[in-house]
Amino acid sequence: MTLYVNLAELLGSRIENGFYRPGDRLPSVRALSVEHGVSLSTVQQAYRLLEDNGLAAPKPKSGYFVPASRTVPALPVIGRPAQRPVDISQWDQVLELIRAKTDPKLQQLGRGMPDVTSPTLRPLLRAMARISRKQDMPGLYYDNIYGTQTLREQVARLLLDSGCNLTANDLVITTGCHEALSSSIRAICDPGDIVAVDSPSFFGAMQTLKGLGMKALEIPTDPLTGISLDALELALEQWPIKAIQLTPSCNNPLGYVMPEARKRALLTLAQRFDVAIIEDDVYGDLSYTYPRPRTIKSFDEDGRVLLCSSFSKTLAPGLRIGWVAPGRYLERVLHMKYISTGSTAPQPQLAIAEFLQGGHYEPHLRRMRSQYQRSRDLMIDWVARYFPAGTRVSRPQGSFMLWVELAEDFDTQRLNRALLPQGVQIAVGSIFSASGKYRNCLRMNYAAKPTADVEAAVRKVGETISQLIAQQ
Amino acid sequence: MTLYVNLAELLGSRIENGFYRPGDRLPSVRALSVEHGVSLSTVQQAYRLLEDNGLAAPKPKSGYFVPASRTVPALPVIGRPAQRPVDISQWDQVLELIRAKTDPKLQQLGRGMPDVTSPTLRPLLRAMARISRKQDMPGLYYDNIYGTQTLREQVARLLLDSGCNLTANDLVITTGCHEALSSSIRAICDPGDIVAVDSPSFFGAMQTLKGLGMKALEIPTDPLTGISLDALELALEQWPIKAIQLTPSCNNPLGYVMPEARKRALLTLAQRFDVAIIEDDVYGDLSYTYPRPRTIKSFDEDGRVLLCSSFSKTLAPGLRIGWVAPGRYLERVLHMKYISTGSTAPQPQLAIAEFLQGGHYEPHLRRMRSQYQRSRDLMIDWVARYFPAGTRVSRPQGSFMLWVELAEDFDTQRLNRALLPQGVQIAVGSIFSASGKYRNCLRMNYAAKPTADVEAAVRKVGETISQLIAQQ
Repeated sequence: MTLYVNLAELLGSRIENGFYRPGDRLPSVRALSVEHGVSLSTVQQAYRLLEDNGLAAPKPKSGYFVPASRTVPALPVIGRPAQRPVDISQWDQVLELIRAKTDPKLQQLGRGMPDVTSPTLRPLLRAMARISRKQDMPGLYYDNIYGTQTLREQVARLLLDSGCNLTANDLVITTGCHEALSSSIRAICDPGDIVAVDSPSFFGAMQTLKGLGMKALEIPTDPLTGISLDALELALEQWPIKAIQLTPSCNNPLGYVMPEARKRALLTLAQRFDVAIIEDDVYGDLSYTYPRPRTIKSFDEDGRVLLCSSFSKTLAPGLRIGWVAPGRYLERVLHMKYISTGSTAPQPQLAIAEFLQGGHYEPHLRRMRSQYQRSRDLMIDWVARYFPAGTRVSRPQGSFMLWVELAEDFDTQRLNRALLPQGVQIAVGSIFSASGKYRNCLRMNYAAKPTADVEAAVRKVGETISQLIAQQ
Repeated sequence: MTLYVNLAELLGSRIENGFYRPGDRLPSVRALSVEHGVSLSTVQQAYRLLEDNGLAAPKPKSGYFVPASRTVPALPVIGRPAQRPVDISQWDQVLELIRAKTDPKLQQLGRGMPDVTSPTLRPLLRAMARISRKQDMPGLYYDNIYGTQTLREQVARLLLDSGCNLTANDLVITTGCHEALSSSIRAICDPGDIVAVDSPSFFGAMQTLKGLGMKALEIPTDPLTGISLDALELALEQWPIKAIQLTPSCNNPLGYVMPEARKRALLTLAQRFDVAIIEDDVYGDLSYTYPRPRTIKSFDEDGRVLLCSSFSKTLAPGLRIGWVAPGRYLERVLHMKYISTGSTAPQPQLAIAEFLQGGHYEPHLRRMRSQYQRSRDLMIDWVARYFPAGTRVSRPQGSFMLWVELAEDFDTQRLNRALLPQGVQIAVGSIFSASGKYRNCLRMNYAAKPTADVEAAVRKVGETISQLIAQQ
């Protein structure tokens, strides 16, 4: 990463986080040059990049300012989920979302699909084709239960970026992050056990709790800093919680990155009450800041954190390759993985290992990160323009999902039904709650290139909301 | 299938099943020609094929006879498992088997690996490479939860061969048969529930029961006709059994095909006691007789049979593509599949669909069936030659596994430990029992081409057994 990109990202994140507010004057080129020990031209390059991203505007002879036009909608309010363990509902609505087939006529703003059309993925496709043509047909044999050695070695190296010092032997390759999560949950919990979750929370992980007969205790979660540690502590005192399941880096659906100090404090809490942490890091590598945020796992000393991730969001979901670093639960997780799929397909594992080994991952990630960051700004602008006044939106620090909160009495299920005939689909907020809260919220995906079609789809969502409100 | 192959298979199965015994005269060419309405030369071709397979020998001017030298070892005795539900053990030994990496220096006679080196698989590899190079990159996207439509249509057609009239909508594609089995079990049972299983039984399915906290009730099973219906009926009367889980066609590990009348009777029993049947058919297409045996599912009228299968044994296990026809349990199975892996990788699904659509499956199957049948005879001959007198072996009617029973006090775990330094591995019998029975048994794989190396490995097994007995 070149110096000016680093600097631009630092300044950009300060603007994003409200450290510099719309209309504020930004530090002078000279001051930044001294502060960061870089040349004047490096600072100028950084400012040009910020300008391109709509984060800085030059005023002649006065330096750079945060554009005053950058009026972003207010943040979602902090949720008030039930403060008791509940059985999870909402499977019907999840099924409605996931059963939808990929359809070029449908703008699926609801799915968790990344953009897989980037040319930086081409070496991966070539590797897949090459492996299929190999004389010894490595793709046809059973893999061993741990996963392919070369891939585990490459993933261990990758994990250094998030502060984890692990070896290939600490990792189990899984069939997507789903299998990592469900194997982890089953390794720790029995039916009837209580699991604390962030709220809103990833519906897939919650449906896993449901399917295995566990109860979810939703913890209020701040849209900028993550799960409330006070509320969590109270819950840990009151209930026999077995595990905490959360997505602290580039959260799905809220997009926040939990600050490092809070991650450490969460781990200390888990140690005090002796519970396990299931850390979903599937979006962590798509953080807009560099270096990427550290995982809770990176602070773990007694193996109580099970780090779950995959290449589904960073490369492509169709590969179905994920992994888990299960700490002290390794043996149990292996058993759970075995009974779930036996072993994972070797061909995509070998192809990804080649892709990583060839140095293709970092450039791909860089490109996707900056594409998604630009699209986030556009998406927020579109929501500000096309959605009713008073709409609240998240401020994603990574990944490609926007969380939108509408007036309290609005029902996004009605919205989705009204949108489908218009060829647009969103993810309704209620699936992100164990008990069907967040009915007035929705999640939209901004991974796809921000074409006029996407803008038109977002506009349709906004206009349909207005129509439904008018009918109320 | 040409006429002479059909006829040879019919005669061959009669010889296998003891209808014609060693030394018996076989029907004359003329008689067969009249009986089956085929030409004399067709019958002669059939006999030449039987000759090649060592099942018939010509005597000048007297016609064909069953070779007198065909003295096959006795069948295994029927097992006497515990007649009560038990918690399943043996995970450590299963892990020992499955954690072994593919190693060209190790003769893995213990694994369930088919021969994937046949040239009839080449169109599949080409399809995989072609799909990787496609402009629209179908392999990178999320598949829908049911699986790819084209593959489900092809599998529905395939199922006609086993007597099943199902449509694509009755099927869910899974990540291997493992996921089909575990999703089925979880769809029906809760922890603590009792599942009746054939005995010996596939260790993977039993470990799934273990992992999900269920109990297994092992039912005595005949090595030629399958699960004892009397014992099963008694068990159903005595215990609150939730489901019956078994592999009735080309059983793993015993190799029998349960006769059709017994399959029907089993279904009637299940109806009477209102329990579900989980039917593992993963080896069914590898039956040595044509047409392949009917499934229990094909007689099912009220949707209580969950048919589980995959392409792992017929094509290649590394593809990780299976399916389940879950009958009335479809919705629950979908949920269980979703929480296990989210969805299945599209690339291998599309490649298999192309392979089936291109008409490559039937010729491939024909070739593998006859290769495995020849190898079975060789394997039985080798065991008769190299193993101690009194060794009992199964008479597989399909697939590529031989079950070997040694003297009652012999311990095959000791055998395996003695074999590993010699570069040979077998599957110990105890993993095929919920409670560690069958310690004096082992399973050997005869899928690989029967080279001198394979023969040497089998010989090593036999000699090591003799040495261990001598030391006793």
